[in-house]
Amino acid sequence: MDPRVRNHADVVVDHSLDVQQGDQIVVMAPPAAEDFVVALHEACGERDANPMWVARSSRASRAQLLAADPDQFALAEHLKAVAEAADGIVQVRANTNASEISDVPPEKLAARGRSQEALQDAFDPEDMCITQHPTAGNAQQAEMSTAAYEAFVYDAVNRDWDAQRAFQAQMVEILDPAEEVRVVSGDTTDVTMSVDGMVTVNDDGKTNLPGGEVFTAPVPDSVEGTVHFDKPVVWQGNEILDATLTFEDGEVVDFAADQNEATLEGVLNTDEGARRLGELGIGMNRGIDRFTSNMLFDEKMGDTVHFALGRAIEQTVPEGQPQNESVTHLDMIVDMSEDSYIEVDGEIVQRDGTFRFEE
Amino acid sequence: MDPRVRNHADVVVDHSLDVQQGDQIVVMAPPAAEDFVVALHEACGERDANPMWVARSSRASRAQLLAADPDQFALAEHLKAVAEAADGIVQVRANTNASEISDVPPEKLAARGRSQEALQDAFDPEDMCITQHPTAGNAQQAEMSTAAYEAFVYDAVNRDWDAQRAFQAQMVEILDPAEEVRVVSGDTTDVTMSVDGMVTVNDDGKTNLPGGEVFTAPVPDSVEGTVHFDKPVVWQGNEILDATLTFEDGEVVDFAADQNEATLEGVLNTDEGARRLGELGIGMNRGIDRFTSNMLFDEKMGDTVHFALGRAIEQTVPEGQPQNESVTHLDMIVDMSEDSYIEVDGEIVQRDGTFRFEE
Repeated sequence: MDPRVRNHADVVVDHSLDVQQGDQIVVMAPPAAEDFVVALHEACGERDANPMWVARSSRASRAQLLAADPDQFALAEHLKAVAEAADGIVQVRANTNASEISDVPPEKLAARGRSQEALQDAFDPEDMCITQHPTAGNAQQAEMSTAAYEAFVYDAVNRDWDAQRAFQAQMVEILDPAEEVRVVSGDTTDVTMSVDGMVTVNDDGKTNLPGGEVFTAPVPDSVEGTVHFDKPVVWQGNEILDATLTFEDGEVVDFAADQNEATLEGVLNTDEGARRLGELGIGMNRGIDRFTSNMLFDEKMGDTVHFALGRAIEQTVPEGQPQNESVTHLDMIVDMSEDSYIEVDGEIVQRDGTFRFEE
Repeated sequence: MDPRVRNHADVVVDHSLDVQQGDQIVVMAPPAAEDFVVALHEACGERDANPMWVARSSRASRAQLLAADPDQFALAEHLKAVAEAADGIVQVRANTNASEISDVPPEKLAARGRSQEALQDAFDPEDMCITQHPTAGNAQQAEMSTAAYEAFVYDAVNRDWDAQRAFQAQMVEILDPAEEVRVVSGDTTDVTMSVDGMVTVNDDGKTNLPGGEVFTAPVPDSVEGTVHFDKPVVWQGNEILDATLTFEDGEVVDFAADQNEATLEGVLNTDEGARRLGELGIGMNRGIDRFTSNMLFDEKMGDTVHFALGRAIEQTVPEGQPQNESVTHLDMIVDMSEDSYIEVDGEIVQRDGTFRFEE
């Protein structure tokens, strides 16, 4: 086995999940990730933890969803039971074909999502690690050779996470006590929002591996302005290109996209919360040096900002603050490398991709 | 997709499990069975049931078991939770390499088995279907081409199960009220046991697909004599050949095998019940015309008898009767096609592979 696969498993088991003897570990992964699943089983075995593999097959999901009546979707009680019994959950992304569910109608996917809403409480972010196993399918999505993509993934996940956390702490110190954030990029993006009272989280490779962002939640009604998303976002197998969203009183009042606008519309129509922002994230991982059409990596890049439609991450919303609720969570990216700035309470903290504390 | 794969899924979902709208279905299958898993998801989708795939990887199990301390094996609470939440469970066999766990020490496998004993209650045979997806690995084990093996498997599972049940009912009528059974084959097998008070089950393709046997439980202390097993039995990746067991007062007092005797010894040492018989089965499926080194098929052949060391099947032991308890259940086959007979309460019911009611 490629030693990088085993090394990746050790980072998940020790750094991200801190697996202990006797822990019940659930590995959710597609068949294409079997090598990594084997490595995770070995790493769990060494720590006398109990791994179990729940396979995610986009081919199987597609077949089920196309055949099923969307009015009859029921909660996956077995998946809920397994998540509740788990001390740690590894969610592995590994596509054989990243477009496998592209021909399932968006409204069916949205109905399925709504029917599984009660699953969310069973998946505690503190006990989860979402990561990537490099497949030919994801390499193709990134327009890279498989070997080059493997190197890209392992460089991104096998890092000095203590150093990364310390670097990001500088931005947490600015954003956590802040009231208002403004993001401006070119002529197309100028958006303002309150983050007053929200918590800024330092993502150091635990719930997401790779980590490398700081993120918080906008006050749901406070978002005003227009955002143009420069980078493609792949949602349920469809690539949405050049999307623009306009917000008034926090709600999307206008939207457009050059490609797969219907997919974007499907997301917006999922539920009430899908038309509001649940997350403001600032990418800070300088080890990720290119876009790969994969949000787990793209949103961590050092000169990007991302906004997510839908559900706010629980850790970012203290008790008593308004939390945006939705079954969906769609991250979308603004490239901040040129002609752009982030303003926090009237002071510029990043210009053209460079943070104030990096200068 | 091969239409036989989809047809097989329909037999499982309709005949074996009688899947209904809203049912929570768990598919336990190796990655090599993905085509069949896709077909099962489609079939479940059509019936508005909720499938979930728990993948079984012998590579992953091997890696975990080799790395782990056998004194620290703990119950798979997550697997117990998922089984308890399920309305139906499909267990799919499909080996990429049937010898994958052959280098895990037998005592470690036995320790692992003991540690999972409490799982048994969560798996109700009434809600289970154990079946086979034809892989190259299993074709190799059968010494057949993959295409010929596929034809063999689908001929065996896609049958008229009502007709099969009626044929087998003739043997149930003989065996169910019986007191004593004697099995004689050549000079090497002559064994007698009581089945007094036990229940004979008609296996018509539900818990096992293919079905095709009738089976009951011997009274644990009643087995006397010697059995020579003509056919190989593959146990945890090792082929046991030409095994002989001698019973006194129901217990194995002597054993031998020409190949992998240590594997057989490991089974016998699993626990107290592993040294006693839990099952007497009579194969009656005339659609299975050759041995394939796969117990799911071999034990159903029309001119065989099998005995299982270990756990008695719950349905065969009524309340108040002694039930052999064990975490193991190893079926072993006697070829009854020549120079052999089965005697029930002193009357011969099968001679040289032909049943009395077939003459």
